[in-house]
Amino acid sequence: MATRCSSFEIQARLGAARTGVLHTPHGAVPTPAFLPVGTTGTVKALTPEDLRVTGTSMVLANAYHLWVRPGHGVVERLGGLHRFMGWDGPILTDSGGFQAWSQREHRKVREDGVRFRHHADGQWRLLTPEVAVEIQEALGVDVAMALDECIEWPADRDRVAESTARTTRWLHRCVAARRRPERTALFGIVQGGVHEDLRQAHAEEIAALDLEGFAIGGLSVGEPTEAMRAMVEASARVLPEDRPRYLMGVGYPSDVVAAVARGVDLFDCVLPTRSARFGQAFTSQGRLTLTHARYREDPEPLDPACACYTCRSFSRAYLRHLCTAGEILGPRLLTLHNVAFYQALMAGLRQAVGGGEGALAALAAEAVRWSAVLPP
Amino acid sequence: MATRCSSFEIQARLGAARTGVLHTPHGAVPTPAFLPVGTTGTVKALTPEDLRVTGTSMVLANAYHLWVRPGHGVVERLGGLHRFMGWDGPILTDSGGFQAWSQREHRKVREDGVRFRHHADGQWRLLTPEVAVEIQEALGVDVAMALDECIEWPADRDRVAESTARTTRWLHRCVAARRRPERTALFGIVQGGVHEDLRQAHAEEIAALDLEGFAIGGLSVGEPTEAMRAMVEASARVLPEDRPRYLMGVGYPSDVVAAVARGVDLFDCVLPTRSARFGQAFTSQGRLTLTHARYREDPEPLDPACACYTCRSFSRAYLRHLCTAGEILGPRLLTLHNVAFYQALMAGLRQAVGGGEGALAALAAEAVRWSAVLPP
Repeated sequence: MATRCSSFEIQARLGAARTGVLHTPHGAVPTPAFLPVGTTGTVKALTPEDLRVTGTSMVLANAYHLWVRPGHGVVERLGGLHRFMGWDGPILTDSGGFQAWSQREHRKVREDGVRFRHHADGQWRLLTPEVAVEIQEALGVDVAMALDECIEWPADRDRVAESTARTTRWLHRCVAARRRPERTALFGIVQGGVHEDLRQAHAEEIAALDLEGFAIGGLSVGEPTEAMRAMVEASARVLPEDRPRYLMGVGYPSDVVAAVARGVDLFDCVLPTRSARFGQAFTSQGRLTLTHARYREDPEPLDPACACYTCRSFSRAYLRHLCTAGEILGPRLLTLHNVAFYQALMAGLRQAVGGGEGALAALAAEAVRWSAVLPP
Repeated sequence: MATRCSSFEIQARLGAARTGVLHTPHGAVPTPAFLPVGTTGTVKALTPEDLRVTGTSMVLANAYHLWVRPGHGVVERLGGLHRFMGWDGPILTDSGGFQAWSQREHRKVREDGVRFRHHADGQWRLLTPEVAVEIQEALGVDVAMALDECIEWPADRDRVAESTARTTRWLHRCVAARRRPERTALFGIVQGGVHEDLRQAHAEEIAALDLEGFAIGGLSVGEPTEAMRAMVEASARVLPEDRPRYLMGVGYPSDVVAAVARGVDLFDCVLPTRSARFGQAFTSQGRLTLTHARYREDPEPLDPACACYTCRSFSRAYLRHLCTAGEILGPRLLTLHNVAFYQALMAGLRQAVGGGEGALAALAAEAVRWSAVLPP
């Protein structure tokens, strides 16, 4: 490709793991990086200022949702998604492929694209690969995702093979539809269910295209953890060494560490933000459910090892009170903490890769503890 | 009274209006002051840090709600309400008298106190004047309110007279129940419905007690604006000149200016915070309902005359998007703006009283415009 708006620079390696920097038109992203989920153009409950404080360098939004509401034309006329949401750092958008999977009742996949009915207005819309690229370029994001077909788990082999073939055809249409390659990068998405040979073949197929980066999709849809990790490994080892690898929608701290060890650079997941809204906090002792009665008079911070505003300022007892009383400040303070916790994990990972095998193994063991649910 | 934990210092006067400083164990409150409502120990959606930024110097919480959840004993054992909610400035609590009015279905007023059934647990509890004082002293607030009987409007004269008599009896019991006068001040509450003579008589009756301050209660319960203002005037002119006067639960900017002109020093109202959660912003052009279609592509800040974080950072179009999409960040950013708007109004009032008749009249005229609803 003649013009390339993003570049990826590897800084250190440890086995398959690596640290690096993804350069985008809106700044640099130290990798491995975690992108908080901001589906509709807002990471729920947080301001852009909060995100900076947590150590976030790049956020995720969703092209499909913004297409429906407020409309990509509106966002474009207001100066693009960065200005619209007040975030001047890098943005990556998912195209809507995952929504096609998660909203099974309200979509039909056809060869030309996906017909969707959105909950906001009940209207049917046809999302094609061309429309997916058009929306994301109009939003002016740094990284656009190709439209893919993400399928259910379990799915039989023929169905998986069909979907990878369609995802490849759609990817070619996405590439052909690009009008602003100097501003918006395009990542292709590896599918292939939990079939190692199909994963590998699909990764080889899309790796042949000279794209700015590649994603591993179709995971975290119910398959066992071990299958997920095997698929990450099978995909990552085939993808080009010099391009960023993005594992979509994964996962717990332990999953993130395992994927970094297998060569993944970018992550997004709703866990830290969604758990917060259900009163659950990630801590260095494990996942803490604040509504449990044991925290009723607990004067300790959420995580004594954390230096975020929430942990510096409030007791578990107060946060529990906010959550049980249904107060907005509860989700807000928990989201701030959980995102800060994930960003501290990523900083730890970037350091551990430089620190050698022992450091990464130690972090992996800790991350297993962080991912476990604390007893009531 | 031998020990007095708060003092009030008048700095300037203009007719009945005055500016001053209320000194409390947790700092000084420049008056006229507006107290954002933090019923359950949180001003909905805002952190203590946010409140400082808006120019808030004192907040309101509710003794009755905190009694039920998390319990005043819990709060006391955790070091008091200031530490619990992370707010080190002055706090005033309402006793629960207003809740007795607003939760008519779930309470019975008796001579000994009010029996309440709270929505959180469905249990009946008896709130007596003694319990009201005990709760507020346990919370360790700077200003406690006496338990009063707030009645419906309209109410016949006999019923109003009975309720003022009971409020006086309860006030005497509150005074006798005080155990920590060196830490928590006590304000009595003037009732008397919209009967000028009853108001005045009641104000005289409670003014005879040497309390740290006095409130005007039982207004903003449905009565016409003119009746409300007349009652404020009738009450304020009888209350001691050298004690702060607090108008409970009022109101629109125009009501606040009118009450300051009649000698009121302290205010609280849910309007700026509650309106925000319904997508309504107070602006120097009027009350703006963000969900209106006209703001869909509006690149302007909520209020071009405002310097708050919301107005510095986001367009009306984005804020409208947040509100229509049901995103938490919408109420958060609108609450921040609305509270900042009210605090700017109070700063303007403090200046206008020093600036003479013309300045106060000009502000009164502006406040009428600010209180009006903008057309769709």
